[in-house]
Amino acid sequence: MARDTEEDLATTIIAMERAALEEWNKGNPTGYLDIYAEDITYFDPFQRIIGFEKIRELYESIRGEVQVEKYEIIDPVVQISGKTVVLSYNLVSCSGDKVYHWNCTEVYQQQPDTQWKIIHNHWSLGKTE
Amino acid sequence: MARDTEEDLATTIIAMERAALEEWNKGNPTGYLDIYAEDITYFDPFQRIIGFEKIRELYESIRGEVQVEKYEIIDPVVQISGKTVVLSYNLVSCSGDKVYHWNCTEVYQQQPDTQWKIIHNHWSLGKTE
Repeated sequence: MARDTEEDLATTIIAMERAALEEWNKGNPTGYLDIYAEDITYFDPFQRIIGFEKIRELYESIRGEVQVEKYEIIDPVVQISGKTVVLSYNLVSCSGDKVYHWNCTEVYQQQPDTQWKIIHNHWSLGKTE
Repeated sequence: MARDTEEDLATTIIAMERAALEEWNKGNPTGYLDIYAEDITYFDPFQRIIGFEKIRELYESIRGEVQVEKYEIIDPVVQISGKTVVLSYNLVSCSGDKVYHWNCTEVYQQQPDTQWKIIHNHWSLGKTE
């Protein structure tokens, strides 16, 4: 892939992630659910989930509960590998007087209809600075 | 890719991971270093690392220190996406009287010389059962 096309793709993937995260931070999981693939695999500090239906149930069960007032995506790195893109970044989320430091991995895959979807998501708590 | 070829690839990737982990559990990081790609990105609960040289330094600095007597790879899931494979699994590691529950993501990518290497590794501590 030409360098400028790769840069465009990196920009697109980061923008998709940011848009989903913005909604998530207002308690709306639809942004992520819209871009999770059928065969998604998922880790967070509390659970492992395999498959879209199970993660939809989880996210719908907490709809409206997440309220993040301020966040920062730190040093996103995009690794392009054919129709697969690995996005990794640190995230600082502020909710009330609490500050969370997250490590995030998203593996995006281009679907047959050309839409990019997430096939793997790994959230973990990182080191507090 | 035909189904049997996909199954072969899944078996190969899990065997590669198990071989590297076996060495790791005896304090030898060479198994992982041999299959980490130049542009690897890495998370564990304590740090984020970008690039092979930095992770080599970290791993060499703890050579001989890890001693895991018993471990179990639980429910490995392999997602094949062209020349990219996402492997995710739970790991239980027993070291002395301590038991650790890990979530592990490995993104393998086939290199131009056909060898499979890890381009992203995310280790985090999961829920204790």
